[in-house]
Amino acid sequence: MAASSSLFSCSIQGMMSFQKTKTCYKEFQCSYSDPVCKQFGHSKSMYLTHSRLLPNEKLSKCELAVKFSQENETLCWPLKIENSLSYSVGKKFQLDDVIEAQQFDRDILSAIFEVARGMEKIEKNSPGSQILKGYLMATLFYEPSTRTRLSFESAMKRLGGEVLTTENAREFSSAAKGETLEDSIRTVEGYSDIIVMRHFESGAAKRAAATAGIPVINAGDGPGQHPTQALLDVYTIEREIGKLDGIKVALVGDLANGRTVRSLAYLLTRYTDVKIYFVSPDAVKMKNDIKDYLTSKKVEWEESADLMEVASKCDILYQTRIQRERFGERIDLYEEARGKYIVDRRVLEVMQKHAVVMHPLPRLDEITVEVDADPRAAYFRQAKNGLYIRMALLKLLLVGW
Amino acid sequence: MAASSSLFSCSIQGMMSFQKTKTCYKEFQCSYSDPVCKQFGHSKSMYLTHSRLLPNEKLSKCELAVKFSQENETLCWPLKIENSLSYSVGKKFQLDDVIEAQQFDRDILSAIFEVARGMEKIEKNSPGSQILKGYLMATLFYEPSTRTRLSFESAMKRLGGEVLTTENAREFSSAAKGETLEDSIRTVEGYSDIIVMRHFESGAAKRAAATAGIPVINAGDGPGQHPTQALLDVYTIEREIGKLDGIKVALVGDLANGRTVRSLAYLLTRYTDVKIYFVSPDAVKMKNDIKDYLTSKKVEWEESADLMEVASKCDILYQTRIQRERFGERIDLYEEARGKYIVDRRVLEVMQKHAVVMHPLPRLDEITVEVDADPRAAYFRQAKNGLYIRMALLKLLLVGW
Amino acid sequence: MAASSSLFSCSIQGMMSFQKTKTCYKEFQCSYSDPVCKQFGHSKSMYLTHSRLLPNEKLSKCELAVKFSQENETLCWPLKIENSLSYSVGKKFQLDDVIEAQQFDRDILSAIFEVARGMEKIEKNSPGSQILKGYLMATLFYEPSTRTRLSFESAMKRLGGEVLTTENAREFSSAAKGETLEDSIRTVEGYSDIIVMRHFESGAAKRAAATAGIPVINAGDGPGQHPTQALLDVYTIEREIGKLDGIKVALVGDLANGRTVRSLAYLLTRYTDVKIYFVSPDAVKMKNDIKDYLTSKKVEWEESADLMEVASKCDILYQTRIQRERFGERIDLYEEARGKYIVDRRVLEVMQKHAVVMHPLPRLDEITVEVDADPRAAYFRQAKNGLYIRMALLKLLLVGW
Repeated sequence: MAASSSLFSCSIQGMMSFQKTKTCYKEFQCSYSDPVCKQFGHSKSMYLTHSRLLPNEKLSKCELAVKFSQENETLCWPLKIENSLSYSVGKKFQLDDVIEAQQFDRDILSAIFEVARGMEKIEKNSPGSQILKGYLMATLFYEPSTRTRLSFESAMKRLGGEVLTTENAREFSSAAKGETLEDSIRTVEGYSDIIVMRHFESGAAKRAAATAGIPVINAGDGPGQHPTQALLDVYTIEREIGKLDGIKVALVGDLANGRTVRSLAYLLTRYTDVKIYFVSPDAVKMKNDIKDYLTSKKVEWEESADLMEVASKCDILYQTRIQRERFGERIDLYEEARGKYIVDRRVLEVMQKHAVVMHPLPRLDEITVEVDADPRAAYFRQAKNGLYIRMALLKLLLVGW
Repeated sequence: MAASSSLFSCSIQGMMSFQKTKTCYKEFQCSYSDPVCKQFGHSKSMYLTHSRLLPNEKLSKCELAVKFSQENETLCWPLKIENSLSYSVGKKFQLDDVIEAQQFDRDILSAIFEVARGMEKIEKNSPGSQILKGYLMATLFYEPSTRTRLSFESAMKRLGGEVLTTENAREFSSAAKGETLEDSIRTVEGYSDIIVMRHFESGAAKRAAATAGIPVINAGDGPGQHPTQALLDVYTIEREIGKLDGIKVALVGDLANGRTVRSLAYLLTRYTDVKIYFVSPDAVKMKNDIKDYLTSKKVEWEESADLMEVASKCDILYQTRIQRERFGERIDLYEEARGKYIVDRRVLEVMQKHAVVMHPLPRLDEITVEVDADPRAAYFRQAKNGLYIRMALLKLLLVGW
Repeated sequence: MAASSSLFSCSIQGMMSFQKTKTCYKEFQCSYSDPVCKQFGHSKSMYLTHSRLLPNEKLSKCELAVKFSQENETLCWPLKIENSLSYSVGKKFQLDDVIEAQQFDRDILSAIFEVARGMEKIEKNSPGSQILKGYLMATLFYEPSTRTRLSFESAMKRLGGEVLTTENAREFSSAAKGETLEDSIRTVEGYSDIIVMRHFESGAAKRAAATAGIPVINAGDGPGQHPTQALLDVYTIEREIGKLDGIKVALVGDLANGRTVRSLAYLLTRYTDVKIYFVSPDAVKMKNDIKDYLTSKKVEWEESADLMEVASKCDILYQTRIQRERFGERIDLYEEARGKYIVDRRVLEVMQKHAVVMHPLPRLDEITVEVDADPRAAYFRQAKNGLYIRMALLKLLLVGW
């Protein structure tokens, strides 16, 4: 290596163990017991951005760049890395980031759900509650979403991890400062092990993940995706009904704008014999893109205007909030729409004993409070399931299976 | 149980140990080694909302509801529970929540104070500093109160507990969302073990406690109560003077609107031979409800316009801030009122050697800075006592005596 | 002691061990095994405000004030304290607080850098990662600075410490409340072990440190100082170039208002044979105070308008952001200034192989993104170095060398 003096050449064979940097995802830390590494200077983090080394991974091949400092001390940093997993610890998770529902197929969903079920059983001060001890999660919120933020932070802390919080992330890119999202991410990734980001712009999460050398979880990017919500919805259906194949699901309310129902419909195509009913005011009908996608995936669906009739047949009644802001000036249309399909005791009476009512929350009056006491009201258990799903995802992204 | 198919029937005898869920307050977690539990599905948290199981409690009797999923898997959840305490661990605390000063009688006060004194002696990294390890407190603030929030969060962390914070809780019920307080609480209780709530509406804390399955501490609800402040005031008097019976307390400043002085006067009726002096501008005199209550409890009180004369007699000089906002347009009245009773060196000179000056903070100029250096200036020690009182309450509510 | 009844007399010889309060910086906690202490009442924190006892310090001499409560229980508190260090644990750090760059001479800088380099090697769940376990840091931000706050909080948590956060500290001194900074500090010091303060007023940090009985770190006080930024800049130069003596540094951009470049120029006088180039638009030239100071310290400097020529000679190209707000109405001058000196690929081509580009961040377009991929782009590594410097300072202030 000493022979080389060019800026982008030399390559060495897997002689560097990452044992000593087991906790480090992107930093290239040299074990000073290692002859080769002795010559290394400061870790050049940028260059390991995409290596994502797991605790027990070894470096099998690493191409290096070399430059000479004036004191002709050799500084190196990796350019390209090939890893060979060793399985003494958890196998690496298939996903580097959680950005959109489309990332999840049937197999990975059921594997994640199994981990989530395990999370339900973790007890305080048990070894399980320390799985993420020493790990730091940054909740980078460009718009407040207290519910989602607390759910993620609870998940991290229930596993012994620590949290850096900001609901003030807009300040990064504030007029006065005007920093790019990419630069903010490069800064924050230096302080934490995983980033949970909420953003007002569709696609922001994807951009963040492309930049970050650490895992990124999309906690909602504007009109875009909110994948952990979609996952917890499917998980709740399985928990409540006991199966996913062959279920009948009614999606009720604002289907045109509801991010959740769209993602849910999308994920249900992973299962067989699913029947979906769309029940919504005309102003906010389910859009054709999803309908066409369901058809292409041979998922049966129909639109109905009769909530009672649908309620009597379905396993899941998924109610959503009609969002006033979608109607602009037309308050009249809004009032008409929101009053149209209310889940109340009358609806419960026709529902089957095993069926449940779900809702992404917050709810206004689209589900009356009298429903809360019924065992089939599953929406608060659904919110709690979000905790388990997020615990599972944090565990998988940080320490693998 | 297999025999039963109705929705609200079967009942079993205490065969489920909560040992395995020692840390769980409201979740119904089944030990899978248990034949009965094997048939149980997902824990139905809502249904244990009011069981408040302590670490070492056992479930003696549990009535269950059963429903059959389509795969005729049996799902059960408890309807009614009877607990039998075992005393190997801390005995359960008498209170489920801390909502108002009225909850505290003389005996419970002195018991809490004893715990608080113990908290003063807890050292870093000692076993005592880990009492609440694994517990999660949610500070749900609907209006900012940095002083109170930091005091609670410090208390929790000094005992090894973790914190979920929001000063942005209004966002839950923001116009766009419009969620009820009850729904927000049901969501947050799923993420934490205890809720500390600050709200702008009187009575909000009571509503939260009625909903929550976990303990709720009122950190101030608008013009209503701020019970931990009242407790730390009484605790400070005992710490500084060495007794509570037979003390002479001067309440000075805004007695009409001061939440603290009203609660303090209320709690002082728990003790004997107490004498209270009211010293305030005419515009903000102590109201009759409290005066009548004191009389009914045989607590001697008198109104006085002579601060010096009162200062020379009392053990405690409790000064408060005159709040401009109470005077609306009448700035003139405000200026007259606030200038009237200032605690300065002249007042110190007439005070007895053992007497102390207290103040809930923040203070403006109603106590001059020259007073700070005098050993009898107790207001910063008083603020510190808030930490010990909150440590004690968190400990008692979460793990009992 | 029983003999004495005066308010400011009695004195005892070092019979109180602080072993039992190893973690306590300002609290006067008595070991109850100690006959003298038995008589002591509540710890009088105010009176130890300036003792700054280290874990292993012993109290050699302590003058006490005594007052008798009515029950003639003796209450004491220390007035003056002399400490004798024992070196079984870390030797005490020379500084009580970190307020301004001027506090740091060459020796202390290199000692701190050595500690910081050690911090780079600390691994998750290693003993090193628990150095500050049990310590509580309060981040008291009177104006938001998410970048700086997250860096400090990450530093604290990477060492096992805990954090109390507020970006809302203005609320302390809000119109309605109007508390002095000193009072706020006296309150917060009761809840934490160290305060990291960001303030909008120059000199605020100094005032806070004068009041606080616990260490204070200045995280930027308005136009004043931001010492940890200055330290991380010097640290980065040493990490990247491998030395500080004899380096050539180009300071580019807004030199008139840039807090960072001014502090950096100041600290560079600690080293020998340093050459500084000032490259800036006329509107924002480096001011004479710094130029004169450099001259007085025999540090060579020159102004240049030719960025390319300087870039080809220097080891460090320190670029800064031109701040629009400095130009008021004169947008034209701003546009002219900011466009003038851009670091892009052309500049990289003339730079030496070992040289690096630095920037305090955030950056706008004064460094083009094409530069990011070049190994000589050091600005994100520089941000990461801030973490190690802050870890080092927190460690030194809380537990010493």
